[in-house]
Amino acid sequence: MNAVAKTFSTEGDYKVADISLADFGRKELDIAEHEMPGLMSIRKKYAAAKPLAGVRVTGSLHMTIQTAVLIETLKDIGADVRWASCNIFSTQDHAAAAIAKTGTPVFAWKGESLEEYWDCTLDALTFPGSGADKHLGPQLVVDDGGDVTLLIHKGYELENGSKWVDEAASSHEEQVIKNLLKRVAVERPGFWHTVVRDWKGVSEETTTGVHRLYQMVEQGNLLVPAINVNDSVTKSKFDNLYGCRESLADGLKRAMDVMLAGKVAVVCGYGDVGKGCAHSLRAYGARVVVTEIDPINALQASMEGFEVNTVESTLGRGDIYVTTTGNKDVLTIAHLSQMKDQAIVCNIGHFDNEIQVDALNAFAGVTKLNIKPQVDKYTFADGRAIFLLAEGRLVNLGCATGHPSFVMSNSFSNQTLAQIDLWANKDAYEAKVYILPKKLDEEVARLHLEKIGVKLTTLTSEQAAYLGVSVDGPYKPEHYRY
Amino acid sequence: MNAVAKTFSTEGDYKVADISLADFGRKELDIAEHEMPGLMSIRKKYAAAKPLAGVRVTGSLHMTIQTAVLIETLKDIGADVRWASCNIFSTQDHAAAAIAKTGTPVFAWKGESLEEYWDCTLDALTFPGSGADKHLGPQLVVDDGGDVTLLIHKGYELENGSKWVDEAASSHEEQVIKNLLKRVAVERPGFWHTVVRDWKGVSEETTTGVHRLYQMVEQGNLLVPAINVNDSVTKSKFDNLYGCRESLADGLKRAMDVMLAGKVAVVCGYGDVGKGCAHSLRAYGARVVVTEIDPINALQASMEGFEVNTVESTLGRGDIYVTTTGNKDVLTIAHLSQMKDQAIVCNIGHFDNEIQVDALNAFAGVTKLNIKPQVDKYTFADGRAIFLLAEGRLVNLGCATGHPSFVMSNSFSNQTLAQIDLWANKDAYEAKVYILPKKLDEEVARLHLEKIGVKLTTLTSEQAAYLGVSVDGPYKPEHYRY
Amino acid sequence: MNAVAKTFSTEGDYKVADISLADFGRKELDIAEHEMPGLMSIRKKYAAAKPLAGVRVTGSLHMTIQTAVLIETLKDIGADVRWASCNIFSTQDHAAAAIAKTGTPVFAWKGESLEEYWDCTLDALTFPGSGADKHLGPQLVVDDGGDVTLLIHKGYELENGSKWVDEAASSHEEQVIKNLLKRVAVERPGFWHTVVRDWKGVSEETTTGVHRLYQMVEQGNLLVPAINVNDSVTKSKFDNLYGCRESLADGLKRAMDVMLAGKVAVVCGYGDVGKGCAHSLRAYGARVVVTEIDPINALQASMEGFEVNTVESTLGRGDIYVTTTGNKDVLTIAHLSQMKDQAIVCNIGHFDNEIQVDALNAFAGVTKLNIKPQVDKYTFADGRAIFLLAEGRLVNLGCATGHPSFVMSNSFSNQTLAQIDLWANKDAYEAKVYILPKKLDEEVARLHLEKIGVKLTTLTSEQAAYLGVSVDGPYKPEHYRY
Amino acid sequence: MNAVAKTFSTEGDYKVADISLADFGRKELDIAEHEMPGLMSIRKKYAAAKPLAGVRVTGSLHMTIQTAVLIETLKDIGADVRWASCNIFSTQDHAAAAIAKTGTPVFAWKGESLEEYWDCTLDALTFPGSGADKHLGPQLVVDDGGDVTLLIHKGYELENGSKWVDEAASSHEEQVIKNLLKRVAVERPGFWHTVVRDWKGVSEETTTGVHRLYQMVEQGNLLVPAINVNDSVTKSKFDNLYGCRESLADGLKRAMDVMLAGKVAVVCGYGDVGKGCAHSLRAYGARVVVTEIDPINALQASMEGFEVNTVESTLGRGDIYVTTTGNKDVLTIAHLSQMKDQAIVCNIGHFDNEIQVDALNAFAGVTKLNIKPQVDKYTFADGRAIFLLAEGRLVNLGCATGHPSFVMSNSFSNQTLAQIDLWANKDAYEAKVYILPKKLDEEVARLHLEKIGVKLTTLTSEQAAYLGVSVDGPYKPEHYRY
Repeated sequence: MNAVAKTFSTEGDYKVADISLADFGRKELDIAEHEMPGLMSIRKKYAAAKPLAGVRVTGSLHMTIQTAVLIETLKDIGADVRWASCNIFSTQDHAAAAIAKTGTPVFAWKGESLEEYWDCTLDALTFPGSGADKHLGPQLVVDDGGDVTLLIHKGYELENGSKWVDEAASSHEEQVIKNLLKRVAVERPGFWHTVVRDWKGVSEETTTGVHRLYQMVEQGNLLVPAINVNDSVTKSKFDNLYGCRESLADGLKRAMDVMLAGKVAVVCGYGDVGKGCAHSLRAYGARVVVTEIDPINALQASMEGFEVNTVESTLGRGDIYVTTTGNKDVLTIAHLSQMKDQAIVCNIGHFDNEIQVDALNAFAGVTKLNIKPQVDKYTFADGRAIFLLAEGRLVNLGCATGHPSFVMSNSFSNQTLAQIDLWANKDAYEAKVYILPKKLDEEVARLHLEKIGVKLTTLTSEQAAYLGVSVDGPYKPEHYRY
Repeated sequence: MNAVAKTFSTEGDYKVADISLADFGRKELDIAEHEMPGLMSIRKKYAAAKPLAGVRVTGSLHMTIQTAVLIETLKDIGADVRWASCNIFSTQDHAAAAIAKTGTPVFAWKGESLEEYWDCTLDALTFPGSGADKHLGPQLVVDDGGDVTLLIHKGYELENGSKWVDEAASSHEEQVIKNLLKRVAVERPGFWHTVVRDWKGVSEETTTGVHRLYQMVEQGNLLVPAINVNDSVTKSKFDNLYGCRESLADGLKRAMDVMLAGKVAVVCGYGDVGKGCAHSLRAYGARVVVTEIDPINALQASMEGFEVNTVESTLGRGDIYVTTTGNKDVLTIAHLSQMKDQAIVCNIGHFDNEIQVDALNAFAGVTKLNIKPQVDKYTFADGRAIFLLAEGRLVNLGCATGHPSFVMSNSFSNQTLAQIDLWANKDAYEAKVYILPKKLDEEVARLHLEKIGVKLTTLTSEQAAYLGVSVDGPYKPEHYRY
Repeated sequence: MNAVAKTFSTEGDYKVADISLADFGRKELDIAEHEMPGLMSIRKKYAAAKPLAGVRVTGSLHMTIQTAVLIETLKDIGADVRWASCNIFSTQDHAAAAIAKTGTPVFAWKGESLEEYWDCTLDALTFPGSGADKHLGPQLVVDDGGDVTLLIHKGYELENGSKWVDEAASSHEEQVIKNLLKRVAVERPGFWHTVVRDWKGVSEETTTGVHRLYQMVEQGNLLVPAINVNDSVTKSKFDNLYGCRESLADGLKRAMDVMLAGKVAVVCGYGDVGKGCAHSLRAYGARVVVTEIDPINALQASMEGFEVNTVESTLGRGDIYVTTTGNKDVLTIAHLSQMKDQAIVCNIGHFDNEIQVDALNAFAGVTKLNIKPQVDKYTFADGRAIFLLAEGRLVNLGCATGHPSFVMSNSFSNQTLAQIDLWANKDAYEAKVYILPKKLDEEVARLHLEKIGVKLTTLTSEQAAYLGVSVDGPYKPEHYRY
Repeated sequence: MNAVAKTFSTEGDYKVADISLADFGRKELDIAEHEMPGLMSIRKKYAAAKPLAGVRVTGSLHMTIQTAVLIETLKDIGADVRWASCNIFSTQDHAAAAIAKTGTPVFAWKGESLEEYWDCTLDALTFPGSGADKHLGPQLVVDDGGDVTLLIHKGYELENGSKWVDEAASSHEEQVIKNLLKRVAVERPGFWHTVVRDWKGVSEETTTGVHRLYQMVEQGNLLVPAINVNDSVTKSKFDNLYGCRESLADGLKRAMDVMLAGKVAVVCGYGDVGKGCAHSLRAYGARVVVTEIDPINALQASMEGFEVNTVESTLGRGDIYVTTTGNKDVLTIAHLSQMKDQAIVCNIGHFDNEIQVDALNAFAGVTKLNIKPQVDKYTFADGRAIFLLAEGRLVNLGCATGHPSFVMSNSFSNQTLAQIDLWANKDAYEAKVYILPKKLDEEVARLHLEKIGVKLTTLTSEQAAYLGVSVDGPYKPEHYRY
């Protein structure tokens, strides 16, 4: 990775790859706005009230064109926003430039080092203060994967006496975080307590990040109320499923230009993300093998006509591997080193630890050849080679441009409503994990129907009474699965 | 409808269409057992313990070959079973005969009148007693649509002074029920209190029946603990979805032999049943229009490529109409009378009131021609005609043989486990609606994997710890939607 | 097989199972007419001209409801028609009855013996004559599989001195034919020369029958002009493909009520019939393995996402086997005897020799149990069992009702146009195999568009000139593959 | 368009965008070779014989990575190759660089002006000569769209006295050609007769180019034998169909990052290209409307479940338009100016005249904004805007990288075998259009099976005899449609 000085330009309160890309970014932002009716409706609805007026919001979420529309929505309803990406490869530099150009502090570029990444995260959560509070933290956090939440909690615990930063790190990234916290402890003593003092909540949109939050609640460590945006139906059943159905193939194509028809594709995991991936690959004419640990999901995959088998059973016949699990060590070095020659390996689950990338890099006799950014060819001693995309990080964001705008409009409408809700209830909510009420979930859906020409049927009052629901919804019991 | 004497044969404690069909039924039962690995595993597992030993169980559930395997499973684990169908058209007469032949009292034939239907229901819940208790009721009920539950509650309320039987009935069927209750009041005074005295619970497997139960809980009327089997994932996401994906077309084909490719098919409702129907019809080359009231389901349909529109917008172009909603008056007489010539109309939702059949029969100028059993052609004054299948009742059961065995094995495994659970917890459970624990849901799935060649992956203990779950499950949070 | 006297009723010049089914048949004929716009248009167009006025036409083609509409179309345009089925199981008895009732001689019932079948064929080609020509033959033949063509040629050759009837037969059916010819030789000396004298042509609609015709041309034996209807695009790319896509599953469902989702289905052959079958099964959620001999078709199957493998590789995992090849010995006794327990085996290709049924019946230790008509269970010595449908004959016609009306309207419009063409050109055509001109093929398609709401675009004259075609078509070069 | 000096680098006998991209190109070539088993097998088979030894071959075909593998295959079997692209936007600059680096003259870069394009074509067909023949032409031509064939014929006719170059041009491009020919006439008198003297044949791979060849044969103008590669099954049913099924969405995604689910997509034309496009878009969840002029193709589209309607009927609801027809004026300015706001318009048919781009540029009140290369936004006077991709040229090549390697291996294996065949039969063939024998077509397929794991079944000799084919094929009659 190059030195910082070369990888970004910064003249104001931002760090982006190339500020001159701002005009191009703005053109794409204009296009995206037409595809994000949910966010545009929210802007209109809250334009006058400005429910987040003056609220300091830190975002840690892939800095793409779609996110730029989210940022400008948050600003439109009053927020004071700072932003970083949540992935070293996912930033679209023209999107970051367009946002920086408007004066919103953004710290993100495609191809950050891990050190740069965490520095950017710190930059994004450091608001300028004054007097005793030279540095202020966010009042609300928009999180994706939970990195900001993690950093604040770890910093706070350090100031409370935790020894975690001195313990041996289990990965390179963990050590980077520890180093950063040690540096902050020196440079900004007491900073994290100041942050926590003002912090009123976080909304989180990934399965993994939400899982972390529930664990923190269980362990009694969570410091603020959190809204689980991931489990809004209009997030998990749309972004995870339909988003990946479009963006996985996009990533594979831009990275490898490979024919998918006729290939054997192995999709590890058949949750919403896996469902989207498996169906997309099959529609291209690939033969898809699904791996699963959960018998219910496995039965679903089988009923949909997929072979369900183990990774081991596919070695030697699998051409493409996609991890979608949110678990670690799904593709081990034992798997990687025995794959069919020219196999393509990528992850769309969440973290890069789904694939044992470190072990691959360290494997005896392996050589690594970079084909182009985010495409590496690993050749084993026996001559077989595999291609690893985006260094094991999200292939749709690393190799393409992430999910398309329309589906993100659903997710980000939930994020925005969650931010409004957190602020409105900042005095009422406890440090627990909340889910948006079904009524709001339905509202998010409703905001997207006109754009795609959907005509809803309206219940008569007799029908509503028969069903025992209101004519205006919500229509389903909480346990309904869609 | 013919007089009772002609429509069934009864030499023992049963009423079936033709006892001589027993051998044919047995052959198909043998085949079905191979396709119902869940039930067969349960038989094996509980063969020795017999957890329902001597328990009186009344079933009110479509008397098909698959149900016959369920009945024999309940008997295998000890129960004393009596059975009726829950639909006047859904009985497979050879299945009923095979069960009757073994000595299990069954009261069901294809094509019952409504009077016969409710008589059969009474027969199924009347166990022979002795002494003061000349007639005993069931200790457990297996219900589908809630008719047994309804009858017991209404009878009990009558004996408590309710005047409901004397109020004007809103439908012919309601009057039939009232007449029956009045007759029982005369013939068996106090009978319903005896029934309720011994009744320990009910398991219910339909969306509609479950909905009724929750309403009774809300109103404080529910007399016994109930298990909501419908919302087991291995029921709602399998039976409702994959079952209908196979059985809707089966019903249409057997009834009409119609080409589905090229037709415009209107699917009212995009819940699990609607999803299965819409996808099935599209796979045949039909152009499917979905109608929905819920914006989330509507958005799902649109993301899957379906046009979402109102029934009104389809009049004149829709060739096939399928109701799947669980609501009433979905296809009104205003719709029916304006449809394209030769349109085919059917219901796979639950009750026949999804289509305004009574209004159709009464419509000015309409003539009705029976083509064959369960297929009626209605010709309007202007010469246009429509075909109504199964008189608006479930088309897959009325015109074909219902869902295939494999998917019913999932549903019925849940039913069986629910019965065992109700009995085991008869002293612990309150008069509320319970859902089977996720662990059992996963178990039901697991029992079906081997048959279809699924190989599950097993978590390592490190992976399980990372996810915060047990290696053996359950694997998902309660709100997970599959 | 029962004696003839029991299997059909005959009061006039017909043999059908039950003439009292005529009314039911007529009701279904009325429905079918609405689904067969091509035939109805032809009736209207030629109603006045009656181009087949007085022409004696023998048909040998599955005696279904759809064929009944064809027969009435031929009669409407003037023909004097006699009919037999071309398959012992494919007759719909109510269709045969409806036709017989109108006075058209028809000789067909479901479940003929082979002796009865060939007797019926002879009946269908024997028109009443007078004087020296006591028996007259047809002037035109509508053939499906070539049985009438075969019989006439063999009879003619016999009268010319061929010894074929005395040679050892390679199958039971061949012996039946030889016996029949020997009987006719005694009863009606010179009959076949009379037949050939008047015979002006045959139209044939199956791949197999057409193949036989080309072989006869090659060998110099063909006696009359023939029109290959099978290779009209509106036949092979519709009936074979889309017909089977609907009727295979219909046959499987009516025979076995089996769940297709999750099953491994093996489709032997990936021609048009195989394509329809494979796609249908996959849409149901089956995992389909295709077997092929032709590398081009195999590559197509693979590009569509199917596993292409040998039958051998599927033994032990295949749940359903479907032959679609038009070849013999595709499923051998070696295959049949090693299949997975409960495997279902059927043929939709053409002849029953795709599966070695004779060898199966003769296999050591096998027992055969009839479950219901057209469904037999064979149990091997080791306890494994397989199900054979329709005794290896066409499963869609044996176990269901064949292709739906709409697709048959395409095929039969081609048949009708071919009959008109053969008669119009009876003096011009040679004893060769002709294909209908592309213009007529397009016309057949055009007749079916309105029914399904298709709006065609019309070329401008500039566009037509640019393409070098006429505004009205034909639009494609002869080698175009659609 | 910039001046030539800026758009390419040339130090040797080549013109490419940036020769420093050669290494990157070579890495991708290495990957592509693994995906092009047909070409690699041909290399191996003919490595020793070198059937094109010393033959001068000019190629005019999209200069992509896949084409680079074709070029190196031709060189491997002995040819002396010069190359240009056949489309101003389709060149992949790293592919061109890699080829140029090896010393093969290539004249192509992404974003040529039309003047540059035709200059490159001339460069590609000008081989260095000596003595009287200072410039030599090719002995064989690999053509895609027929531009080289056109240029040679027009040049030859000019030298024979044609006045065509002086007639008014119907388009800007036609004028460019005329100007070039006039310049060549001055600079290289008699050049075209020298070219024609040595020219032995052309192989052409597009529907449009082939159509032109047949027209030339009809008009008696064709100068050399031609092989129609387009109508090899392994070309038209693979490249056109499966290639577009993968590359259309790729082009749309890279250009617009747009969500396809929920959109209304209009596919003009349902030939092989249209079939691939329509199925791809539907698999993404778009609702596809097909437009067709041919009733047979229209009926196919309807049987596959597509709405078939006119472009006019879609105005205001169509979100995406794709032309696939090979015809001109398919989307007229009347259509373009009435489309829904934000509609995306592109062509994957062949020439840019499918869409009236010139008329759009000239339309009153329209403004054009370039978003990024190959993406232009046209805003109409009323504020509505549409996006035009690749200026109406092939969207898959202009906005993405064309078809994937595997499918191109089929097409290019046909091209290579055609070149070998043309040279081998240079004395036998007449100036007509030939098709490769079916045996070679099957061979091309066979070369691709192992890579994707296909296991073929082999006929027994009895089966082959029954079918009347050889065990080794060819297996199908000429009229078979696959």
